[in-house]
Amino acid sequence: MFVAVVSSAGLREDLADDLKRRFPQETFYFFRNIKEAAPYLGEAEIFITYGEDLTGQDIKNMVSLRWIMVISAGMDEMPFEEIAARDILVTNAKGIHAGPMAEYAVHRMLHYSRKTEVVQKQEQEHYWSRAPVMEELRGKQLLIAGAGAIGSETARLAQAFGMHTIGVNASGKHVDHFDQVYPVEDLLKHLPRADFVISVLPKMPETDGLFSRAAFEKMQEHALFINMGRGNAVDDEALIAAVDEGRPGSAVLDVFDTEPLPVEHPFWDHPKITVTPHLSGISPQYQPRSMDIFHWNMEVYRGGEESYWNLVDPEKGY
Amino acid sequence: MFVAVVSSAGLREDLADDLKRRFPQETFYFFRNIKEAAPYLGEAEIFITYGEDLTGQDIKNMVSLRWIMVISAGMDEMPFEEIAARDILVTNAKGIHAGPMAEYAVHRMLHYSRKTEVVQKQEQEHYWSRAPVMEELRGKQLLIAGAGAIGSETARLAQAFGMHTIGVNASGKHVDHFDQVYPVEDLLKHLPRADFVISVLPKMPETDGLFSRAAFEKMQEHALFINMGRGNAVDDEALIAAVDEGRPGSAVLDVFDTEPLPVEHPFWDHPKITVTPHLSGISPQYQPRSMDIFHWNMEVYRGGEESYWNLVDPEKGY
Repeated sequence: MFVAVVSSAGLREDLADDLKRRFPQETFYFFRNIKEAAPYLGEAEIFITYGEDLTGQDIKNMVSLRWIMVISAGMDEMPFEEIAARDILVTNAKGIHAGPMAEYAVHRMLHYSRKTEVVQKQEQEHYWSRAPVMEELRGKQLLIAGAGAIGSETARLAQAFGMHTIGVNASGKHVDHFDQVYPVEDLLKHLPRADFVISVLPKMPETDGLFSRAAFEKMQEHALFINMGRGNAVDDEALIAAVDEGRPGSAVLDVFDTEPLPVEHPFWDHPKITVTPHLSGISPQYQPRSMDIFHWNMEVYRGGEESYWNLVDPEKGY
Repeated sequence: MFVAVVSSAGLREDLADDLKRRFPQETFYFFRNIKEAAPYLGEAEIFITYGEDLTGQDIKNMVSLRWIMVISAGMDEMPFEEIAARDILVTNAKGIHAGPMAEYAVHRMLHYSRKTEVVQKQEQEHYWSRAPVMEELRGKQLLIAGAGAIGSETARLAQAFGMHTIGVNASGKHVDHFDQVYPVEDLLKHLPRADFVISVLPKMPETDGLFSRAAFEKMQEHALFINMGRGNAVDDEALIAAVDEGRPGSAVLDVFDTEPLPVEHPFWDHPKITVTPHLSGISPQYQPRSMDIFHWNMEVYRGGEESYWNLVDPEKGY
């Protein structure tokens, strides 16, 4: 049986070679992007993508398509309506972002609490001063909005540092490595306790503008707000007004409503706002780990008895 | 019985008040430095110091002195000869640096592995690029020279990140949170494995110049070397030559032979060397934690049955 596997994900050459070796009966076509892949879309039975390049029209044109492997977790760009209509199998790479994102979160908390930018400026001036007041993470309160896999891994590291971890999610149900978990309706009630507030919320109608003026006003003056979920959760103007007025003390943003963040956006130059280009989840281990999931699922697809790893429900979109 | 307690340590006012409240029978004199304290040295039966201000002549002049509480751990400036001759009790604050120093170490590893300075430069230029190759700490090899209390706490955090921890100490005996511990004679043999090398070695004749040209040559091209022990362990010229030639990839130095580091020292401006002003152990919790030790020891001194916390042998100097 001839199965064409087409990838628009710019897979590393060693990983592409490994796929051909593992699955010699399939025919693989590897491309760096969907434009290159276009002539092969009609043939593709299996399609590997980062999930940001497929349109509803593409799905209609991909007449042989039976399975989409999305090597990403946030799937807000996926044309799920067309996918659900055709009953196409979707799997994703949920879970593999957790490690690097948790490291990003700890890094940004340490960067802030240890006054790194003051220390860097002193170094540029050859100025030896031990005066900057550096805080420890130990004993601090961390609130994570979006207590799921990524939030849990972040909380695990935070607990190793002796932080107290508070989670907020849709259900309020317990998640590993959180000292407490509350339903999202209670977010505002718990913000005043937090020294650090991290959003890992996915993009959904319910999360739109959750970090509003009212939320920022509840934060402490020394608090650091980090958004590494999706940009829709933050009201940009409210955040700028909030840090200008002193609550929270600072913000680190890795995700934005429009990405790349436009060059003229006021976030770039704001002294209390740090912009990073959606890199919290990037890792050299990212593609190898997503291929571990794909290998497993290929065995299942070819008739294995086990069930799919990270099966996505196109009706729900997750 | 009249006991005069004199402090040159610039104790926080709340902590000074707390001492007076806890020990109403003693007479306390609090000063910001030894110059201010000078007129009271003759009276002092107990002296609280950071351990960098006492000379041998001071000890001779302090005729009532019976106990020195050093609220520090590195005691290379202490006039132990005169102290031992008079059989004066010495206790220190060993152990309270471990927490903040371990946080410093993790922070510097994350700062390096996540290409923070490249990302900061991109931000200044409003340049959105996800190209900087960021490494995870997970799976990396960390070698700590000086596997003691600070090394162990650093290794504990590193293990939480999924790092492999290798310790080197005088005995080669096992220490908690190290996957392996080797005797210091084998240092050069294990350096080639390390992605990160951290020195927390104390100042002793045996540690002088341990990080020599020969040691740096054994390190990997991408390795980061961190010195947060004492400056004597590093041969400055050898380090500059080594990073210029590409091994190790970069260095972060918190301690130096001469502190403050002279303004003309080449470390300040070297693009591969980061200078921080001996701040790895600084914390707002530092004085409160050292006073916990002092409180305990005061009870013992006043006739408690327990033994002293962090008793120092003046003959050995630790």
